[in-house]
Amino acid sequence: MKALIMAADGFEDMELHYPLYRLKEEGWDVTIAGPYKGIMTGKHGYTTLADTTFSKLVPKEYDLLVIPGGKAPEAVRLDMDALKTVKRFMGEDRPVAAICHGLQVLVSAETLEGRKATCWKGIRDDILAAGAMYTDSEVVVDGNLVTSRMPDDLPAFMREVFRLAAKAGIKATAKLKKAA
Amino acid sequence: MKALIMAADGFEDMELHYPLYRLKEEGWDVTIAGPYKGIMTGKHGYTTLADTTFSKLVPKEYDLLVIPGGKAPEAVRLDMDALKTVKRFMGEDRPVAAICHGLQVLVSAETLEGRKATCWKGIRDDILAAGAMYTDSEVVVDGNLVTSRMPDDLPAFMREVFRLAAKAGIKATAKLKKAA
Repeated sequence: MKALIMAADGFEDMELHYPLYRLKEEGWDVTIAGPYKGIMTGKHGYTTLADTTFSKLVPKEYDLLVIPGGKAPEAVRLDMDALKTVKRFMGEDRPVAAICHGLQVLVSAETLEGRKATCWKGIRDDILAAGAMYTDSEVVVDGNLVTSRMPDDLPAFMREVFRLAAKAGIKATAKLKKAA
Repeated sequence: MKALIMAADGFEDMELHYPLYRLKEEGWDVTIAGPYKGIMTGKHGYTTLADTTFSKLVPKEYDLLVIPGGKAPEAVRLDMDALKTVKRFMGEDRPVAAICHGLQVLVSAETLEGRKATCWKGIRDDILAAGAMYTDSEVVVDGNLVTSRMPDDLPAFMREVFRLAAKAGIKATAKLKKAA
């Protein structure tokens, strides 16, 4: 059970910390990747530590990719290594969860064509232009992809993330490991 | 499964929203009470709606009381109705979860004598003076009382809150209701 969160300065604080704490609560290892290693600061002033950089990522080491929103995605989407990791996850149908402006990264990775998704309403037209089918609902699940609109959707978002992880057999494997 | 969160302006944003979202994720009804009805603003600028006021609370309607930290507890502890609710919960050994400066409310409600607890280190001497036995650990469970130190303890805090709720039979009752 290893999760990867991709962020940068200006991340939406709740959208990073709720998944981070929630995954830890369930016993997941969580790695936070950013454009550089070290302290990153959110829109609301919370800080978090980037354990590694996008350029050092080995995507196959992680079972789940989480992309929070805020102002961070406009930096993340400009990083070619970050996009390579996103393309890898999406191309291999492995669990990806993006919320709010996090979908901007999926747009730049050209991974939304024909996919059902939701996002912050301010970027709705961008995901439509990228070929996504948009719905205004708290959470949309389409195969390997879970998307939500905003912080208040976090309960539904993480509920579906865990459902998807269980379906992908991630939780089951971990349980077996624990019992051994 | 009904939870009550007690707050005021200046609440610690993560410490209110993580339990709020987490409880919603599990299907709980959550009521937020404040000194007045309406929008309250956290230390970091997040807002939340106080559904009711301390003076209108009927404690027996709730299965769990959560007290987040931040600057809010210094307002909550001055409200006699708020303290009455806290005394009621503690006196009846019903689940109470307090984090960080949230323990200030337990001090003013005179409910910490002989209890094991933790809190934000800056108020450690106040809970000691109130008769508590302090430990510097991410979470302390003593009977009906779950306490933690700070936002980064939230995964352990909520894990123990749900464990306590299950032990108190709150979850079980709700599951039966769902199945009916």
